[in-house]
Amino acid sequence: MYDYGPLGAALKNNMENHWRRLYVLGEGFLEISCPIIAPEPVFKASGHLDAFADMYVECLKCHESYRADHLAEGLHDNPATLKEDELGELLNDNDVKCPSCKGDLTAPRKFNLMFKTSVGAGVSKPGYLRPETAQGMFVNFSQVYRHAREKLPVGAVQIGKAFRNEISPRQGLLRLREFHQMEAELFVHPENKSWPRFSAVKDTKLPLVPNSGPPRVMTLAEAVDQNVIVNETLAYFIYLTYKYACDIGLDPSRLRFRQHEKDEMAHYASDCWDMEAELSFGWIEMVGIADRGCYDLQAHINHSGSELMAFELFDEAKEVEEEVVRARFDVMGKLFKGETKKIADALSKLPAESVKGKAEVSLDIDGQTYKISSDCFEIIMRKEKVSGRKLVPHVIEPSYGVDRMLYSLLEHSYTKKDDYIVLRFNGRMAPVKAGVFPLMARDGLDSIAVEVQDSITFAGMTAYYDDSGSIGRRYARMDEIGAPCCVTVDYETKANGTVTIRDRDSANQVRIKKENVAVAVARIVSGAGLEALEGL
Amino acid sequence: MYDYGPLGAALKNNMENHWRRLYVLGEGFLEISCPIIAPEPVFKASGHLDAFADMYVECLKCHESYRADHLAEGLHDNPATLKEDELGELLNDNDVKCPSCKGDLTAPRKFNLMFKTSVGAGVSKPGYLRPETAQGMFVNFSQVYRHAREKLPVGAVQIGKAFRNEISPRQGLLRLREFHQMEAELFVHPENKSWPRFSAVKDTKLPLVPNSGPPRVMTLAEAVDQNVIVNETLAYFIYLTYKYACDIGLDPSRLRFRQHEKDEMAHYASDCWDMEAELSFGWIEMVGIADRGCYDLQAHINHSGSELMAFELFDEAKEVEEEVVRARFDVMGKLFKGETKKIADALSKLPAESVKGKAEVSLDIDGQTYKISSDCFEIIMRKEKVSGRKLVPHVIEPSYGVDRMLYSLLEHSYTKKDDYIVLRFNGRMAPVKAGVFPLMARDGLDSIAVEVQDSITFAGMTAYYDDSGSIGRRYARMDEIGAPCCVTVDYETKANGTVTIRDRDSANQVRIKKENVAVAVARIVSGAGLEALEGL
Repeated sequence: MYDYGPLGAALKNNMENHWRRLYVLGEGFLEISCPIIAPEPVFKASGHLDAFADMYVECLKCHESYRADHLAEGLHDNPATLKEDELGELLNDNDVKCPSCKGDLTAPRKFNLMFKTSVGAGVSKPGYLRPETAQGMFVNFSQVYRHAREKLPVGAVQIGKAFRNEISPRQGLLRLREFHQMEAELFVHPENKSWPRFSAVKDTKLPLVPNSGPPRVMTLAEAVDQNVIVNETLAYFIYLTYKYACDIGLDPSRLRFRQHEKDEMAHYASDCWDMEAELSFGWIEMVGIADRGCYDLQAHINHSGSELMAFELFDEAKEVEEEVVRARFDVMGKLFKGETKKIADALSKLPAESVKGKAEVSLDIDGQTYKISSDCFEIIMRKEKVSGRKLVPHVIEPSYGVDRMLYSLLEHSYTKKDDYIVLRFNGRMAPVKAGVFPLMARDGLDSIAVEVQDSITFAGMTAYYDDSGSIGRRYARMDEIGAPCCVTVDYETKANGTVTIRDRDSANQVRIKKENVAVAVARIVSGAGLEALEGL
Repeated sequence: MYDYGPLGAALKNNMENHWRRLYVLGEGFLEISCPIIAPEPVFKASGHLDAFADMYVECLKCHESYRADHLAEGLHDNPATLKEDELGELLNDNDVKCPSCKGDLTAPRKFNLMFKTSVGAGVSKPGYLRPETAQGMFVNFSQVYRHAREKLPVGAVQIGKAFRNEISPRQGLLRLREFHQMEAELFVHPENKSWPRFSAVKDTKLPLVPNSGPPRVMTLAEAVDQNVIVNETLAYFIYLTYKYACDIGLDPSRLRFRQHEKDEMAHYASDCWDMEAELSFGWIEMVGIADRGCYDLQAHINHSGSELMAFELFDEAKEVEEEVVRARFDVMGKLFKGETKKIADALSKLPAESVKGKAEVSLDIDGQTYKISSDCFEIIMRKEKVSGRKLVPHVIEPSYGVDRMLYSLLEHSYTKKDDYIVLRFNGRMAPVKAGVFPLMARDGLDSIAVEVQDSITFAGMTAYYDDSGSIGRRYARMDEIGAPCCVTVDYETKANGTVTIRDRDSANQVRIKKENVAVAVARIVSGAGLEALEGL
């Protein structure tokens, strides 16, 4: 678990706000905000309660815990696929000991990675901290669908914390127990995964690493045509992920999209790609983009009985024939008297298949069991005009790890200049937009500098006032935190009202009027160079 | 625990962003972001582990739990002040039964309101979900202070979730188990609680309910002069809270500041005020603003040994005299040989007071105990030039409940018009900034309307496209969600490129050029009326 300080928290806010801009304003996704604690049935349905586990071993001497599959690396092609006893045998046969104290290890045990807690006083209920934000969007599908006036496609997003009780968290921000996600769940028609905006981006070339054949750079149109990416919608969100990564300042030459191996992909997923970034640790997953089919909604339908479905209106009403159960009131009336209607209603709701050929059907109504012999009902063909049908939407899920991308941004922005670091953040991401310095902290230069700082913050941008040390030292401080520009108030300011503004990357300076500083900083933040300040 | 849908989540974002604007950009507070799960020692130090508890009783029949003090309301002046056995006796004497099933109740038991979990596999450690965001800022004081180049005052803020395992959550968003806070911790010099910006706001009149004397409307200057509010800094943040509440659209005539009763205030607090809003439930606390003295930092210093202190540089170095312990190496050398230096160092760190008059001093060094007789040391007066001193800053804490304020905003914005609701959100808070309608969904009006919508979203504002039902019905839909304006594309748009824009509150309309819609919406969002659109 990490704390973000003032610069880290601002960088994270900037990253999240830009994502919100792309997904919510740009693509019309609906942002919702669900609780972190959810009750057990949610995770029973999602499969996390039964299957979201790793195996660990504990040292009998120093009591350190380790991921069992990590200790088996090199002893097996894919130790994560082994069962508890197989993995235990493997470690035992190879005489694997505690890496830190050489003590003996326990046999591998399963460990559910969800943090558990207890909700309520007295007779309490188990609750779990969400291991992903996604489930909140699945259980709210009907609300989101209704908000969208019952039309597909509709997408929901959440930006927030998720929790995984990792056995061995590692590599700083790359594997945290408490982390930040930005997730989108796009609900689409199962038979229509085209995407209108795809045509506008189809010629974008991306570096792809498919799970068969060599890595290649190809256009999205080629990738979809050649079935390298399974459909247009998935391809569009691969594009949008790439755009987001480039927008925030990741280095395009250190990005790639890797398709999951067939045995790596969930059985229900029809396609899954990871955007990976190249870091000092190697290629690391930043974002997963998957076509999850109807798996998630169907799982919640099965466990909760909620009808998480969309209604497809046909272009014109269709006549359909269907076998249905019809009660025979003439027979039933004598047998069931005043209860006939109630029983007949229940009977007619049964699927015809479930009663076919049975001599007797048993029905539970309001806690009572009724035996109904087959002469009480008949199976008939019913013709009906139907205007549409219910269907379980499919889900396309882009899932972003915020902390990992933030860390990658630090590595990809890191450069050295003489004897200090320069973080080449782009203006939109930079936690501080401008340094503001009085050449001397006297003669009224300081109060003019404070006014200039106020004009920048009033325009909604962060500015850092600094009056200590040489101007060179102050530039270096701002370069180290990636501020895109610095404004200096000097004696000329008092004479003619102009200040210098210096661009971080070129280290060039121009003079502008002090009233125009906020406008100038805004232009630099939006990516313009000093030449865009002409006339200010 | 509540889910926020697309409108609620957007409203919450708008509220949080405006708060960030006031506190971070406006007042220079440093936003940080700390984990939700913290280890036990943090809450041992803060006092939450021992004292953050309510008493509950459980029904022996239906197993419902109740706050014991709530069941004793009307039976005692202030049941929350009673001990377990006193409260039990009171309930027993009055034959209080389960409110829902009339069953017998257990005796009151203490229940800690923090959600507990377990961190790590194998030998795990207890962790707790933070019951407030504040502790993260206290434990990070040194980092924040260093970021501010070691100057006081310095303030930190956090916006995020907090968790309290309430025995009986109630009244919707007013008492949640999982809720949102915006908290600021301002660290100030203990002897300087003046505030430079106070002079700019001192004539603001606020409705105050002090804990002695009648409620009154008075200026902040009067309140500080007459010692109704204890200091300028606290008064300034009462002002800022009032400004925030008015900015987001709470009704000033339904706001007041109530000072805590003396027995309601924490023993260490020198003053504490709640901003309360008048709701259908009565006057409800929204924000607490307290001068907490050095309590929080001192508590963490005591428990962790971390030096959470600031350094005050004197205007000029002072000569100070101090009694110190000085080792007598001549005596000790013979007794302790090679260990002399180690023991002498430890000895000289003892406060002089602690050894005065003792014949023998016992010292634990690296697990070994040394007995040192009084002839091994002497107490001397040391004169020293000191440039400053360490001190534990005091804390002024404004703590905002987001969900409560959001709910209050709904009540204070709620109006009726004919047969439907109009939420009179101001432009800054409105989740949707504009409705965009084609008069008919054909003849190209629809595609022009989509362009208009895009121009609004491109400018960073949410717009809702609606082509279904009469225009009146569509206006009503937007009024109900509080959108400040609606834009209609009609046949005149095709003829001369103008659209109508309608103001929610006056229901008046003007025509403007379609290229100027984004500018027009931005002006309305910033609070202008239709007259400000002249020339567009």
